[in-house]
Parts: sequence; structure tokens; C-alpha cells
Amino acid sequence: MEGWQRWQGISMKVEERLTELGLVLPEPMQSPPGWRLPYVNLRMHRERGYLAGHGPLNPDGSVAGPLGKVGAEVTPDMAYQSARLTCLAMLATLKRELGDLDRVVAWLRVFGMVNCAPGFNHTPGVINGCSDLILELYGPKAGAHARSAVDMADLPFGIPVEIEAEVAIRM
Amino acid sequence: MEGWQRWQGISMKVEERLTELGLVLPEPMQSPPGWRLPYVNLRMHRERGYLAGHGPLNPDGSVAGPLGKVGAEVTPDMAYQSARLTCLAMLATLKRELGDLDRVVAWLRVFGMVNCAPGFNHTPGVINGCSDLILELYGPKAGAHARSAVDMADLPFGIPVEIEAEVAIRM
Amino acid sequence: MEGWQRWQGISMKVEERLTELGLVLPEPMQSPPGWRLPYVNLRMHRERGYLAGHGPLNPDGSVAGPLGKVGAEVTPDMAYQSARLTCLAMLATLKRELGDLDRVVAWLRVFGMVNCAPGFNHTPGVINGCSDLILELYGPKAGAHARSAVDMADLPFGIPVEIEAEVAIRM
Repeated sequence: MEGWQRWQGISMKVEERLTELGLVLPEPMQSPPGWRLPYVNLRMHRERGYLAGHGPLNPDGSVAGPLGKVGAEVTPDMAYQSARLTCLAMLATLKRELGDLDRVVAWLRVFGMVNCAPGFNHTPGVINGCSDLILELYGPKAGAHARSAVDMADLPFGIPVEIEAEVAIRM
Repeated sequence: MEGWQRWQGISMKVEERLTELGLVLPEPMQSPPGWRLPYVNLRMHRERGYLAGHGPLNPDGSVAGPLGKVGAEVTPDMAYQSARLTCLAMLATLKRELGDLDRVVAWLRVFGMVNCAPGFNHTPGVINGCSDLILELYGPKAGAHARSAVDMADLPFGIPVEIEAEVAIRM
Repeated sequence: MEGWQRWQGISMKVEERLTELGLVLPEPMQSPPGWRLPYVNLRMHRERGYLAGHGPLNPDGSVAGPLGKVGAEVTPDMAYQSARLTCLAMLATLKRELGDLDRVVAWLRVFGMVNCAPGFNHTPGVINGCSDLILELYGPKAGAHARSAVDMADLPFGIPVEIEAEVAIRM
């Protein structure tokens, strides 16, 4: 399927699945007052797309709580949900920039960063919130990705999760 | 050398060097009970290979000790060995997925993460355990890589070293 | 413009802008005594360039102070300058390896790491020192980049900022 056909949304499978799951893509991020972010959320070059570090967003684009450190203010289950919201924020960026989420033909690299309290290091369980959603939406072939899930000393705004990623895009 | 010939292992130089060095590739990682890791250890797309974050493994695939923070429970020399074991774990993934380690024609990016105690920041000396092995096996041309070696607040399972990487692969 | 012409520096726009801004590219990094760094500062493969983690340098290539943690010994304004110096160190690497800074046709990924004191997490404001300089020199098209700006537990040598990046290169 080439040319105009894919712009008609003939195979909008990923968005159909989002709807089936009752999920909504958030509006663009509203930066907190005084923050200047001079970069792009998706950098494309040829068939590669580089997703900037994203955090969890509410549907209106405001930063989604809870804020704080996993293992202290934020439970691992809450942090799993934050990682899922972070994945939705990345998908919202892809939808805005690409028009059709099916143009992502392969997830390549997911780098998951978790804002942990001392003593908590079950970071893979947190970032599973992102990986599980990618696999639910894209399936085991396009959705397969290499991943690291690591513990940061802190994250901007005190968000519990930040994720950056690299994808392959159908031109 | 194309097609079937390279599948016959005609130029298995890297594996010969591994044998000469007395090194053994570990079995696939045995996840600790209760850990679910829904990602792939090597994601290939065209000629690129993305290696997920790997940690040090024993020959049977269990997580290799010592666990803990470098500069506290783990000495810098032990951590250097952990980085070398982590490199072997990445090579084991490449061998399983590619069949022939010589198909890696260029190491591109190595991102080394070290689980440091406060006050210890000689992370380059630790990740040298990985870089040195790559260079011993692949030589200065294919083995040359860009690298960061940084201090994480903690790492999964309390491993002292985790490394992710990107390589170019002969198709 | 192909072949010898670009080697004559016919369109050395980026270097002209550097001169206009009164900026000087530093000499190659002088490793502190006892540090061995067995990697390359720029790894090229086809049209991709991978920049290793760079830190702030003085014009003579020595590590540029102030050293320490942002939010403690180092103020956010000082750290912004460190990120700008780190960007200059990356540009110096690109100039040495490519001959002409205009051969960088697209900045793709910037990964900014900040050595923060507990309680400081305004890491985007620090890494803006790098992003702003990229955009001043390359403009909004070639200079657009995806970015993460995160808080590390510590960094080698106690530098306040370390940045790695990926760029697209005109062959």
C-alpha cells in the first residue's frame, strides 16, 4: 500500500486498538512556567525517528502525577501506570508528526529511566508499563524492542518515569 | 563472501579468538523469579543491531556476582571483570541471533552504566572491561566505538554494571 | 556541491558563525593522569556519526571547571556554561574528524547528563546550554534534535555535565 492510500487511513490498525482499549492520546505537553525546551519531540531523518525523553501527561497535556520517587511517594504500581502514560505521550507525538501511527514499522530502542528512592531497583517492572503497551498495540513483530530500564538520581519536574526511544518509519 | 559461504563459518575469527582467550559465552539469562522482561536482547533492523541493556552472567546464565555498589561492596577491579562478563553476555546474544560473530562489522555505540557508591566516579576504568574485550576480539577497526561511562543511582538486581550498545551487521 | 569543492571550504558557514560569536574550539582532551580511555570520540558508519560522551574543556584541552554537583558547588548558570563548553568539545571532535563542520547535515539525538546535588532537577535548563549553541550555529532545520536531559548520580572526574549525541553526516 503506497501513496495516497495510506493517507486515507485504510489500515489504521494501531489507532483502532487504542480506541478498543479505551485509551486517549494526550494534547501536546504544557511546559511548566519558566521552562524552555529548545528541542523537538520527534526528530526524523530518512526512515529513522528519534523520540526525545517523554514523561507522563494528562489528557490536557499537563504533567501527570503522582510526582516523586518510586519506592517512596510513588508505588511500583503507580509507576507502571506512569510508564504507560509516558508511552501514550510518545504515541501522541508520533501521531501528530506522522499522521498515522501505522507508519511506525518497527520499535527499535527503548531507554527507560526511573526516579527511584534509595533501595528500590525493580526498574524493569516499572518500564514494563511502556513495553506492554507497545506490544499490545504493535504486536510481537513491529513492537519488539531492545530496552534498558535504569535508575536515575532524579528526573525533571520530579516525574517518576522518563523514556526516550528510536523507531523505524515507513516513508 | 556472500550467501551460504558465510554460514559455513569460513572466517570465524572472533570465535577463534574467544577460544584462544579461554572465554566461554554464557547461556541465555535466567531471570530471577518474578521478573518479567518483555523485550528482546537484540533488535535488528536492516544493517543495525540494538543490544538491550545487559548485565554480567555466569556460564549457566544466572546473574553473576558480586552484586552491590562499586566503591563499597564491589572493588573497581571486580567491576572491571563484571564489565568484561557483561560484554560476553552481549556477545552470547549476538552469537545466538546472528549465528556468526563476524557478522558484526562495526561496533558503533557503547553506553556503560555503573552502580556506584557515593564518592566513586572512576566509571571509565570500569567500562574499560567491556571496551578492552571488544578491541581484543574485533581489533581497532571493527572494534572502535563511541562510548559513555556513567554513574547510575542503582541498577536492576543490584548488578554493578549494565551496558547497552549499537552495532552494524553484515546482512 | 560535491567532491573537492566542499573540501575547499566554500560553504564554511558554521565556522564563520563560531568566529562571529567569538568562540574557539578546544584542543583534544588531555586525559587526567592514570585514565585510559580506549574508545573513539566520533564513530562514523555510513552517514551516521556517534559522538562519545564529552565533557567541558578549556581551550588547551584540559577539563574545564568548575567541578562538582549542580545545585551545590556549581550554580545552574555555571552549569549552563559547562554544557555550552561541552558542545564546543563535541564540535572540536567533529571538526578534527570531518574537516568541515558543514558536513553535519542533521543533529539527531542529544543525551544530556547532569551531575546534580539532591533536590536539584532543573536539568533541562542546564542542557539548554548545548541545545542553544547547536541551534545558533546550525539553525532550526539542521540543528533540530531530540533530547533527554537527566540527572546522574555522578560523572567522571566530577564534571557537572556530560553529553553524547548522534548526527547525520554528508559523505
